[in-house]
Amino acid sequence: MRHFFLFLLSLPLILAGQTKTPFDYVDPLIGTQRMGHVYPGATVPFGMVQLSPDTDTIPYEVNGKYNPDVYKYCAGYQYDDKTIVGFSHTHFSGTGHSDLGDFLIMPTLGKLQLNPGMADNPLSGYRSTFSHKNEDAHPGYYKVLLDEGPIVAEMTATDRVGIHKYTFQQAGPAHIILDMIHGIYNYDGKNVWSFVQVIDDYTVVGYRQTNGWARTRLVYFAMRFSKPFKHYGCTDYDGPRVYRGFWRKFDQSDNFPELAGKKLRLHFDFDVTRGESIEIQMALSPVSTAGALFNLGSESSGKTFDELKAEAKKKWESELNKVTMEGSESDKVNFYTALYHTFLSPILYQDGDGKYRGLDQNIHQAKGFKNYTIFSLWDTYRALHPWFNIIQPSRNQDMIRSMMAHYQQSAMHMLPVWSHYANENWCMIGYHSVSVIADAVAKDVYKGNVQELLDACVKTARNRRYDGLGDYMDKGYIPEDKSSSSVSKVLEYAYDDWCIMTLAKKLGKYDIQKEFTERSRNFSKVFDPQSGYMRPRLSDGSFKQDFDPLDTHGQGFIEGNSLNYSLYVPHDVPALVMMLGGKAKFEKYLDNLFDNHLPDKYFEKTEDITREGIIGSYVHGNEPSHHIAYLYNWTGSYWKTQEKVRLILNNQYRNGPDGLSGNDDCGQMSAWYLFSSMGFYPVCPGSDQYMLGSPLVESVTIHLENGKTFSVKTKNQGPQNIYVKKVTWQGFPWNERYITHAMIQSGGELVFEMDSKPPKK
Amino acid sequence: MRHFFLFLLSLPLILAGQTKTPFDYVDPLIGTQRMGHVYPGATVPFGMVQLSPDTDTIPYEVNGKYNPDVYKYCAGYQYDDKTIVGFSHTHFSGTGHSDLGDFLIMPTLGKLQLNPGMADNPLSGYRSTFSHKNEDAHPGYYKVLLDEGPIVAEMTATDRVGIHKYTFQQAGPAHIILDMIHGIYNYDGKNVWSFVQVIDDYTVVGYRQTNGWARTRLVYFAMRFSKPFKHYGCTDYDGPRVYRGFWRKFDQSDNFPELAGKKLRLHFDFDVTRGESIEIQMALSPVSTAGALFNLGSESSGKTFDELKAEAKKKWESELNKVTMEGSESDKVNFYTALYHTFLSPILYQDGDGKYRGLDQNIHQAKGFKNYTIFSLWDTYRALHPWFNIIQPSRNQDMIRSMMAHYQQSAMHMLPVWSHYANENWCMIGYHSVSVIADAVAKDVYKGNVQELLDACVKTARNRRYDGLGDYMDKGYIPEDKSSSSVSKVLEYAYDDWCIMTLAKKLGKYDIQKEFTERSRNFSKVFDPQSGYMRPRLSDGSFKQDFDPLDTHGQGFIEGNSLNYSLYVPHDVPALVMMLGGKAKFEKYLDNLFDNHLPDKYFEKTEDITREGIIGSYVHGNEPSHHIAYLYNWTGSYWKTQEKVRLILNNQYRNGPDGLSGNDDCGQMSAWYLFSSMGFYPVCPGSDQYMLGSPLVESVTIHLENGKTFSVKTKNQGPQNIYVKKVTWQGFPWNERYITHAMIQSGGELVFEMDSKPPKK
Repeated sequence: MRHFFLFLLSLPLILAGQTKTPFDYVDPLIGTQRMGHVYPGATVPFGMVQLSPDTDTIPYEVNGKYNPDVYKYCAGYQYDDKTIVGFSHTHFSGTGHSDLGDFLIMPTLGKLQLNPGMADNPLSGYRSTFSHKNEDAHPGYYKVLLDEGPIVAEMTATDRVGIHKYTFQQAGPAHIILDMIHGIYNYDGKNVWSFVQVIDDYTVVGYRQTNGWARTRLVYFAMRFSKPFKHYGCTDYDGPRVYRGFWRKFDQSDNFPELAGKKLRLHFDFDVTRGESIEIQMALSPVSTAGALFNLGSESSGKTFDELKAEAKKKWESELNKVTMEGSESDKVNFYTALYHTFLSPILYQDGDGKYRGLDQNIHQAKGFKNYTIFSLWDTYRALHPWFNIIQPSRNQDMIRSMMAHYQQSAMHMLPVWSHYANENWCMIGYHSVSVIADAVAKDVYKGNVQELLDACVKTARNRRYDGLGDYMDKGYIPEDKSSSSVSKVLEYAYDDWCIMTLAKKLGKYDIQKEFTERSRNFSKVFDPQSGYMRPRLSDGSFKQDFDPLDTHGQGFIEGNSLNYSLYVPHDVPALVMMLGGKAKFEKYLDNLFDNHLPDKYFEKTEDITREGIIGSYVHGNEPSHHIAYLYNWTGSYWKTQEKVRLILNNQYRNGPDGLSGNDDCGQMSAWYLFSSMGFYPVCPGSDQYMLGSPLVESVTIHLENGKTFSVKTKNQGPQNIYVKKVTWQGFPWNERYITHAMIQSGGELVFEMDSKPPKK
Repeated sequence: MRHFFLFLLSLPLILAGQTKTPFDYVDPLIGTQRMGHVYPGATVPFGMVQLSPDTDTIPYEVNGKYNPDVYKYCAGYQYDDKTIVGFSHTHFSGTGHSDLGDFLIMPTLGKLQLNPGMADNPLSGYRSTFSHKNEDAHPGYYKVLLDEGPIVAEMTATDRVGIHKYTFQQAGPAHIILDMIHGIYNYDGKNVWSFVQVIDDYTVVGYRQTNGWARTRLVYFAMRFSKPFKHYGCTDYDGPRVYRGFWRKFDQSDNFPELAGKKLRLHFDFDVTRGESIEIQMALSPVSTAGALFNLGSESSGKTFDELKAEAKKKWESELNKVTMEGSESDKVNFYTALYHTFLSPILYQDGDGKYRGLDQNIHQAKGFKNYTIFSLWDTYRALHPWFNIIQPSRNQDMIRSMMAHYQQSAMHMLPVWSHYANENWCMIGYHSVSVIADAVAKDVYKGNVQELLDACVKTARNRRYDGLGDYMDKGYIPEDKSSSSVSKVLEYAYDDWCIMTLAKKLGKYDIQKEFTERSRNFSKVFDPQSGYMRPRLSDGSFKQDFDPLDTHGQGFIEGNSLNYSLYVPHDVPALVMMLGGKAKFEKYLDNLFDNHLPDKYFEKTEDITREGIIGSYVHGNEPSHHIAYLYNWTGSYWKTQEKVRLILNNQYRNGPDGLSGNDDCGQMSAWYLFSSMGFYPVCPGSDQYMLGSPLVESVTIHLENGKTFSVKTKNQGPQNIYVKKVTWQGFPWNERYITHAMIQSGGELVFEMDSKPPKK
């Protein structure tokens, strides 16, 4: 159905004889159903504003208990929902936990209703039903018809401003609701404070302060209407309190310009004619309402919706056109949508004047870099940041500088683990900033002082308080009885330590190199030769009994089972192959992983793993296994990598709203697609090598920041021709199982000659 | 007793033959018992830090209801209490409502107890008993022996830093508790958020955000210990919550450097030897922890407690020595303590670099002025700001500039009404900023653009939403059924409007002059000729029935009864005299006021009025009557002003902790004392006249900012010689009932010849 719909959409272009551009192929609705957790709304590349519809108001808690229904709403939007609650300005792209959803705006016609209402009775509140047939989503632009009204809602964005355009299909009393309570992963008490000032009958400023995934989070706004409101009002939904101060003197519900509290909903009232549009520009700032007004003034003031929509399109074209891909129409949709998804986060996190809120909650001035936030590092160190080293090297350098600023502002003296909006949220494990840093240094993307980076990495990796790290440093492993998910931690620390080693080695810091070389070998300490798996150990040194390598629940692994996680030694695959019994046994282990069905019971309580994301027992829908298909390169049967990669590309990424088999995780799932569809993948970030697989594309050309062009071409490409017969580089045979970053950077042509049969061993 | 104690204190000075200085006469403990609501702790003149002991933890609410016991604790300290809970850094001086009490610090020895404990069982918590005999308070210095420990606690201050010195009288484990929950007028939920970072083992920063009298209030700190703590910890007293985020990974109670929540108490642990001292410097900032660190670095870092104590003394001497008074020892104590009290607020409200938080919650840079806060204007326009026009003209000009900044940042487009810490709290009535402005302009103290001031005053006075102002503008009165305390509002608006008129007149703005001249006559609209009193009117224009001019409860007046308030027409006393039936009847009205006993039932529910503050039916303990004693000047019997003023001076101001008969109200009660004891008083601020009374002093010399000297001398002064026989100015007879500000500013000598008998009519 969806596919057909896309075809219809593209029909006019085809009929007009125009060539479709990368922009045209992007479908922001892909991944909005169930597990993708991406949002369909309007944003510009790496923009601070993500203005997108939220389709429900599921709370994080019900009756004081975690509400598992909330998980679907990490990005605010679920494709199967029938109603839209409104349009909020901040969204994560693809995460598996959430926050944000700030400053929900909803237009209504007729009687004012200040509550959102229920999904099964949308008329009971300000929400509206909608149909996907009346929905249109492109990079930087989202449009939907709200059935109640009806009202056509359109939105676009600049870096820091969300632009709304509401066109009322009937004359009458209209309301623009500003819901300051609304949020994603909301719970009672999440709103710590909010503050609103009505400056004049066009302009409103304020902030929302929350205690959620980000513990101490502040977002400021300044909004301006294209038409003066004739009246406005506010309701404070906070329960009765004795202390409300002398503000009780005023009727604050009616045309009152200064409001503060925990649960505010405002409405701005207009009379509209049929077909009349009201535009709203809402600027955000991490600093202050003054900062938001500055951003409004410098980015959007005086421009119409259509002008700003055109600017957003131009920004997207400029980024998306960096890569030109040839392939099937369906693959182009997948490819360019993946490309789009990799340009959604981290996001810019500073005002136009370079001021931003730091981890210490102080306001800092970014000097010589742009500050970014949303570092989902457990996910994104794997392929997204390596992808940036090819396609966005300057931004990636700024992201590393942003991480360093975080480090300098950290009372814990640590680089970010999972950080958003001037907060460390400590989600997941490891200290994978060091991988991002090591990869950028190895690939010569980072141009600054490497010694500073090494110092920060070492300080981070020596923080004994952090997540079992004291035991890890003392024993080389973490007792599962002292710190759960202990094996995952050891395996990832060992890899991260190898990354630090590469930095020390480059700088000739022998002591540090030695220390972290030793630490990088700790993966062997959690390998149980008897069972043949990575296995948790206890304080007494023994391996945990009652161990099931298939189970993801409470077995010493995080969001994964031992079967998958036992393959996580990206920095020393030869050692891993030896541990698992040599090449033949290792190959058999991989075969079993892909072939044996994993029953639901082994992962049904792990939110981030679902049936859709699994092939056999291989879990693609979550990150720890993303390198695994490439491990056949270390066996005799490297052609199996080609088989598996193509299987995954076709099985796990689809056109259509359900097109992502798991959380996109800030672009990591999409970055896997981009690399793999081009025929190579960074199995071990921090090294300069990409392991070869099997390209899906017919060709890809990347326009590098250094002005050069790197391209991948295929000969004899086809759905059945998944095996690589021959590789040439610059016309010469290339017989390695990898290519290097230097090759890409030098520009040139990598040609894969495809075949329908595997090569002879 | 207290008197005797003071005598003992001063004995060494007398024995040494030294002359006591103004500094020596100040007794910060005066007014700390019951109603004065001043604090005894350490501060510098107009300093941002008021580091003072809090003697209990009375909450604003008990079981969801207002707790009347809290009223005594407006300044945190009550003289009759037996325990000290700790030392917090911010206190109002003399207010009748409260807030603040930020960052309570308490030293303990022995077992750690993190709760404050109960007054009747101090051993149950960290509080300690203390005795007044072990207490020593001077300007800028406070010392007390904490019985538990025992520990000698000393404190001093700079503009923005509170300096603690704790000397442990026993060796053992010592703890410095930092209670982030504690506050004055606290209630459950008042702490909106708090945030603490331990930077190193000397340094801690953080902030406290509250929703109290100030609706959206943030105070930042940076503290540094003189000795590294060997361990620290924190308890979050917030109840169980589902959502605590991934911070649950960490044991945040123990040596954990980054803390946030609503109810945090921290402890810093040391081993101390007997007699060892630990010093703490705690800097505040309205801006950020970075601002607090800046203030710490620029004001106190590297200096010892004793050095900073000496600096504080020097600052006080420099301010207090501006006035030299001769009189009885007891009067000197009252006089210089009053002088001290008038230099406690408004307080400086900006970092050392001029940055401050504005009413819009944005950070502003003060350019060309210093920013002040705590404007208790309903009180202080009467005599405190007029006093500043003599003794602190530069500061008063900066205060007006601070008010103008408030106006520019106000979403309500109003000058401050009652403002503190970047908040308008809307306490009390009127828009008395205009009086402060008009008085400074009339007296040529304000050197800037007067047109800007007038614009702000007019905009403020035309805000129809404000407190009955719409009706006032339409009808000339406010219906009591629509807005309570309506008569007080009309009378005060009328006076304020007269102030605005004077500005318009000066600038030749005839239309505005006319508009506000008319408004200034509105006092006549609430005068009921039948009863002979100011009396509330209703929407239909009729006077309210069931009217009792003696009652302060619900009769159309705020913190006063009609009997007192009917005399409030400071800008047109001749008209008032006529309304009340002419000079003779007016005099009789005044006589009755001073002579007739007012039974308790008429004021027992009005917190700000107590028996101690009443003479007959004249209420001196609260502000609305402060001009009344001077009104005899408009009768034939002006000598009765002399009688009443001396009566009030002697009856309402005493040496000793109970020495203030009512709230000092940020220095207004004390400013009344200073003026009246010198023999004149600003009955109508905004005019340049001071009405003459009866000086209590033998002589006073004021060293003016312009380098000139103004002095008052008396001849034949004595306790019985309360009548003024003759006044001379510069040696020539002065026959007016007033002097002018220009006379004071020109320098010179005003001589009162006193007599024991009233002059002949």
